[in-house]
Amino acid sequence: MYEGIVQDLIDELGRLPGIGPKSAQRIAFHILQTESFDTTRLAEILTVVRERVKFCQVCGNVSEQELCAICRDPRRNAAVICVVEEAKDVVAIERTREFRGLYHVLGGAISPIDGIGPDDLRIAQLLKRLASTEVTEVIIATDPNLEGEATATYLTRLLVQPGLRVTRLASGLPVGGDLEYADEVTLGRAFEGRRVVE
Amino acid sequence: MYEGIVQDLIDELGRLPGIGPKSAQRIAFHILQTESFDTTRLAEILTVVRERVKFCQVCGNVSEQELCAICRDPRRNAAVICVVEEAKDVVAIERTREFRGLYHVLGGAISPIDGIGPDDLRIAQLLKRLASTEVTEVIIATDPNLEGEATATYLTRLLVQPGLRVTRLASGLPVGGDLEYADEVTLGRAFEGRRVVE
Repeated sequence: MYEGIVQDLIDELGRLPGIGPKSAQRIAFHILQTESFDTTRLAEILTVVRERVKFCQVCGNVSEQELCAICRDPRRNAAVICVVEEAKDVVAIERTREFRGLYHVLGGAISPIDGIGPDDLRIAQLLKRLASTEVTEVIIATDPNLEGEATATYLTRLLVQPGLRVTRLASGLPVGGDLEYADEVTLGRAFEGRRVVE
Repeated sequence: MYEGIVQDLIDELGRLPGIGPKSAQRIAFHILQTESFDTTRLAEILTVVRERVKFCQVCGNVSEQELCAICRDPRRNAAVICVVEEAKDVVAIERTREFRGLYHVLGGAISPIDGIGPDDLRIAQLLKRLASTEVTEVIIATDPNLEGEATATYLTRLLVQPGLRVTRLASGLPVGGDLEYADEVTLGRAFEGRRVVE
């Protein structure tokens, strides 16, 4: 509907996830009309970002070096590895400040419907890591959905061995939520995982 | 939370309208991980788009030439001008295929709260156009909200003169909507503007 490059910009923006035609149009006009928005800077970042970003050779997290900031940090506890699906999950867990161990990013979850099997994930690398380092606990922190649970079950079977604790993040009621709005599965899990009050 | 350039990308994307931190993160990882997404193309477009896009010298619509495609088209009826707030509105009206005249893009609406007065809009250019060409009707198609109505009222007072029809788009019930869900103002307007069924 627009002439030349404006339509090109709208089309390219519309290919980004979660951006429909209306949003793409709004963003395109914002870019065109807002002097303070630095188009050159975004263009420069886009040009170099793929070259500059590597994935950590140990854990698979995003990094600009061979090892990511977490794997490089000597203060982290190398005896505990938290297995997550995506690099985004690393950031989410870091934000809690609860965990001081290392990570392992699988790069997804087992999902037969999307054609993703165990061989498409960084599971072999995880086994190699466990064989070559002194790890006492693996925390499986895949998503609490169908694919994440399947991946967790698969990993648990694969990893269980004497001297290695394999744990899974607790399921239950979200803090700050209302009990009456919790779905049955979550509420069931909350019962299952109930704890003695001390 | 991320290292260097990944965080830069998330920050820049987060400055776009309607994109919060979570969406910016999702888009950034999509850009990083989706081979088929052409980062170079988006970067190239961003680099040239501001230079390439001019605004039509007559109507203010976006254009890559001095005159936009609509003002260049000899088949359009130059006697009718439809006044809109933004170039986006031109596209919305073109999509209806109901209008074959020309446009005039104001570049916004009168909004004292945002410090936008009549002098910040392309109103002088509209008056000049009306003085120098044979226009028989001006259709005011500003948004049906507070600012749009204020702009329409201002324009109507300014434009009314013998030999020039000044009209305003009809307000009423949206087609396909439910009467019971219409707000009182819209329903009131629909009554006000009721027509004899022939």
